[in-house]
Amino acid sequence: MTYINKEIKQNHIRIYELAKYIGQTVRVCGTVHKIRAMSGFAFVILRTETALLQCVYDEKTANFSVAELKENMSLCVTGLVVADTRSKVGFELQMREIEILSVPYEEPPIVISGKEVSTSLSSLLDYRPLTLRNEKERAVFVVQAALARGIRTFLEQNRFVEIHTPKIVSGSAEGGANVFGLDYFGTPAFLAQSPQFYKQTMVGVLERVYEIAPVFRAEKHDTSRHINEYTSIDLEMGFVEDFTELMQLETAMLSFAFAFVAEHCAREIALLGAKVPKICGIPAITFAEAKAMLCAPDGDDFEPTEEKRLCELIYKQTGSELVFVTHYKTSKRPFYTAENAENPSVTDSFDLLFRGIEVTTGGKRIHDYETQVRKMQRLGMDVNAFASYLMAHKYGLPPHGGMGIGLERLTAKLLGFDNVRRATLFPRDVNRLTP
Amino acid sequence: MTYINKEIKQNHIRIYELAKYIGQTVRVCGTVHKIRAMSGFAFVILRTETALLQCVYDEKTANFSVAELKENMSLCVTGLVVADTRSKVGFELQMREIEILSVPYEEPPIVISGKEVSTSLSSLLDYRPLTLRNEKERAVFVVQAALARGIRTFLEQNRFVEIHTPKIVSGSAEGGANVFGLDYFGTPAFLAQSPQFYKQTMVGVLERVYEIAPVFRAEKHDTSRHINEYTSIDLEMGFVEDFTELMQLETAMLSFAFAFVAEHCAREIALLGAKVPKICGIPAITFAEAKAMLCAPDGDDFEPTEEKRLCELIYKQTGSELVFVTHYKTSKRPFYTAENAENPSVTDSFDLLFRGIEVTTGGKRIHDYETQVRKMQRLGMDVNAFASYLMAHKYGLPPHGGMGIGLERLTAKLLGFDNVRRATLFPRDVNRLTP
Repeated sequence: MTYINKEIKQNHIRIYELAKYIGQTVRVCGTVHKIRAMSGFAFVILRTETALLQCVYDEKTANFSVAELKENMSLCVTGLVVADTRSKVGFELQMREIEILSVPYEEPPIVISGKEVSTSLSSLLDYRPLTLRNEKERAVFVVQAALARGIRTFLEQNRFVEIHTPKIVSGSAEGGANVFGLDYFGTPAFLAQSPQFYKQTMVGVLERVYEIAPVFRAEKHDTSRHINEYTSIDLEMGFVEDFTELMQLETAMLSFAFAFVAEHCAREIALLGAKVPKICGIPAITFAEAKAMLCAPDGDDFEPTEEKRLCELIYKQTGSELVFVTHYKTSKRPFYTAENAENPSVTDSFDLLFRGIEVTTGGKRIHDYETQVRKMQRLGMDVNAFASYLMAHKYGLPPHGGMGIGLERLTAKLLGFDNVRRATLFPRDVNRLTP
Repeated sequence: MTYINKEIKQNHIRIYELAKYIGQTVRVCGTVHKIRAMSGFAFVILRTETALLQCVYDEKTANFSVAELKENMSLCVTGLVVADTRSKVGFELQMREIEILSVPYEEPPIVISGKEVSTSLSSLLDYRPLTLRNEKERAVFVVQAALARGIRTFLEQNRFVEIHTPKIVSGSAEGGANVFGLDYFGTPAFLAQSPQFYKQTMVGVLERVYEIAPVFRAEKHDTSRHINEYTSIDLEMGFVEDFTELMQLETAMLSFAFAFVAEHCAREIALLGAKVPKICGIPAITFAEAKAMLCAPDGDDFEPTEEKRLCELIYKQTGSELVFVTHYKTSKRPFYTAENAENPSVTDSFDLLFRGIEVTTGGKRIHDYETQVRKMQRLGMDVNAFASYLMAHKYGLPPHGGMGIGLERLTAKLLGFDNVRRATLFPRDVNRLTP
């Protein structure tokens, strides 16, 4: 028997700690990203975790030949840390010796060490395991992680409890045809389109809950805005009197999360040339007002071009790149959405549009059992099929509401991408199931 | 157009802030959990977020009748906050007036306001939306959230980047029959049994990654240890020289996370009568040594009873409730597991057992392309079917390893439950698809 100590032993220095070792000889590990060789001298760019490290090879001081190195080789370098103001990280490494840990089998078919990966979106995604190694491509997902972390931090400060709800479900929350079916030991089941039923149920248990987890939509349209599996940031809270409180919460949350990203990912944001909005407040406009502003024909929803133009108009008028649209028609919103007390043909609901596209859907829900059942009956729904969902209402549920935010869409818009796939690690669409 | 400000307006005081208002009259919202009425006087226990609040009704000072109240009614209470040393939270609320927000439709069929819910596990789960409202039942998920948060905090301090990988996949990572299939627009697809392929791929991109997300196992056995969908805490890291480093990391992580739970959930832990181990180190024993210690017949794995007895023996010998078992047989571990350099019939892998059950599986992986392909061929696997996974190896991958931890099992064992369903919010098993 041996004994595993909780002290983590590390035989190499991590990139984040390196600034403390200026003037010292250290062992650093990474992968060769790029080699620029001159006569007897070379720059070797090492790809480490989330940063690139410039290593300087000089045949006079190194005990190996630079010809031994090739791109995508993993190694540990022993060398001297030298302050260098030209370097982004403030220092570089003078190479003394190397230990090669791993050698690639093949030259990559796509160059990943350039500023950008010069290829089509389709190849970018086909070769995702490789192309993600590009500095800009991977920066997208460092930003995405920080964005989710900022949101999580805000929610935890506001005492939302994280929950984990099932993705294999017996019924569909959003209705419609775009649901994936599967066989569950002989019973037909579905992949959850959202954690809607469960998060509402949990309002009756813990009052404020959130979940950041995959949701599934069998969307047959191959557009730049849709993917068939995405990460949904879902939250739900009790004792909401007016659905404006939900928009306030989202405003505060995005204000916090965007500032969090700006602070923690300054390098990645600069690298990607993105602009992170500072949010103090967000304008809100009703759906009817928005349609009027657009001089658009009435309808249940916006066309994608209308969403885009609305954002442009609001930006010109207010300087805000975000806008809430409220009071969507009752006919368009799911059966659990609360109707407006003064005008039941519209709902106490909202979408948030950001740089031309919807990134959030939210609203107040129906909390009263009889009101909900009557509405379902009116819509011709089979109330019995929803018995386990309605249990929460039946035994008492406070007034509540919540929202769902698409993490990939939010990341894409934050970084100025037109296609949500650019901000999806391994996207799934009607034509794509790998990698 | 209106303007949504980021200042969150709240017309009630939250339970966490209440201690600041002793001596003041405030408005508090919650749900009636229990009423103990005497003549002209009553205790009304209000269920608020994660704590119960004792409210005192006195007909002389309240402007309503206690008869208006019923259990599971949601309301806002205006009253005076009074210090009370007998109360767990240190204060109580003297009720002045109420505003009823929601009335239950039906009396619940199960009493949830007692210390425990007195019913079978099956009813507990059938009525989950209701039974979770019990103080102890919901405390389980407050602890679970804190456990995940502790782990996340540790991983972020150690610069692991959170990723979101697809759950609809084209191939199966773990192999075997226990995989759910589905039709993906005419192509056969599967629900991911683990993010194994993707997290390994991401080692080539960001070096250290983690994901806390659902995984799916079409497990046909209806046991106390298995559920068919669970929350897997997956991490993977590059530049691992020896798989002991992975066990060190887990030891440090669980030490941190358990201390985090003990600090943040002292009330819930006490309520549940749980004991949270203080971890300074964890003993490790090889699989062969463990089998010898048990005087058990040789085999590829442990029987559940053997795991239990091994934990008892280790506890007696070392006082540790956790034990690593290392060097499982190559024949038993998945194809991507690294074989031991000195003895290729065993792997550089480990399980962590906690209070009688396996809660983690981890190990070093094969990082070299040719080694991996040769092994797959030896096992008779179709290498081409794994082309997108093997892309990471082909273009160079550092030595790496990682682990997967079942959040529900870990929570169950931490709280001393025999059945993992007790620590699963809405469990899925061969007989259960609702609620």
